[in-house]
Amino acid sequence: MVKVVASFTMSLDGFIAGPNISRDHAMGEGGERLHQWLFDDESDMDRKMAQEMSGRVGAVVLGKRTFDVGLQHWGDTPFPAPSFVVTREKRDPLQMKSAAFTFVDSGVENAVAQAKMAAGGKDVVVMGANVAQQLLTAGLVDEFVLQLAPVLLGQGSRLFEGIGKNQIELKCTRVVKSPLVTHLRYEVI
Amino acid sequence: MVKVVASFTMSLDGFIAGPNISRDHAMGEGGERLHQWLFDDESDMDRKMAQEMSGRVGAVVLGKRTFDVGLQHWGDTPFPAPSFVVTREKRDPLQMKSAAFTFVDSGVENAVAQAKMAAGGKDVVVMGANVAQQLLTAGLVDEFVLQLAPVLLGQGSRLFEGIGKNQIELKCTRVVKSPLVTHLRYEVI
Repeated sequence: MVKVVASFTMSLDGFIAGPNISRDHAMGEGGERLHQWLFDDESDMDRKMAQEMSGRVGAVVLGKRTFDVGLQHWGDTPFPAPSFVVTREKRDPLQMKSAAFTFVDSGVENAVAQAKMAAGGKDVVVMGANVAQQLLTAGLVDEFVLQLAPVLLGQGSRLFEGIGKNQIELKCTRVVKSPLVTHLRYEVI
Repeated sequence: MVKVVASFTMSLDGFIAGPNISRDHAMGEGGERLHQWLFDDESDMDRKMAQEMSGRVGAVVLGKRTFDVGLQHWGDTPFPAPSFVVTREKRDPLQMKSAAFTFVDSGVENAVAQAKMAAGGKDVVVMGANVAQQLLTAGLVDEFVLQLAPVLLGQGSRLFEGIGKNQIELKCTRVVKSPLVTHLRYEVI
């Protein structure tokens, strides 16, 4: 079964980006701090976890804002896999070096359905807090893969915001402490 | 040196209590879920961690609301240690079975100073999100001891709210996965 996996680096106070996200600050102002663990070349464990994650990506579902601010930075699809952008705009597919962006104007659930078909048995990875929140409330997220960064940002975009008032039970399936972050994996029950 | 330790069970979405905290719902509505790990007698590891925590408590600083909603539930001081309630009210000490509540009307910093004197070399433990937030922004929290519960509450009181817009760096000093929660310890840098 193809799994839908929401993967984010989150500050201990719940932010996955700083405020004022823009093309110049794709992670929001000060949000680059979150991804230090990916770029500081200190830890074999972190490298291994990032590689494991990348290796499982069969397709990507991402929001239009994530696409807009990320495209220049990636210069390609975010992972070398078919990528489905949730948008209201009708737009032709955009072929990149590794794969294509397909623009889905019929809602997140359809984007996920298309991504599952394209994932070749691997995971569908969700990027963008807003899309993740919509999928979570629709009961369509199977797993969260989080890297908990030891920092309080104080402001920015929260991963878990506007997800409704019903308690959602998770099952923690993995905890790995690395020098730079804590890697957490949860199944949504 | 006496350390000031803020210890909380937090949902993955950052809440340490549900909404509408009252004497009947000291943890807020639905917030009891957070403390399941303390009462479900399933895990030796959780019991050990709770005992280790209790054993280190030399004094407590708590907010007035935490005092008001907790008193009946505890029937004593929350831990068997001198407890300092931050309040605007002038009020005589209240002797309980194990120790006394002292009411401090001169601010959180003074409450911490008094608690440090009374802690006998052990930790000063902070209870109540509001007091923890005030102490954090005043640079007076040395450590966070968190139990991360595998649940999304969706609403309630957040631990890290209104803590200013400056990034605060932490150092993760311990991660322990138990069957019911993930135990995390951070030093504030």
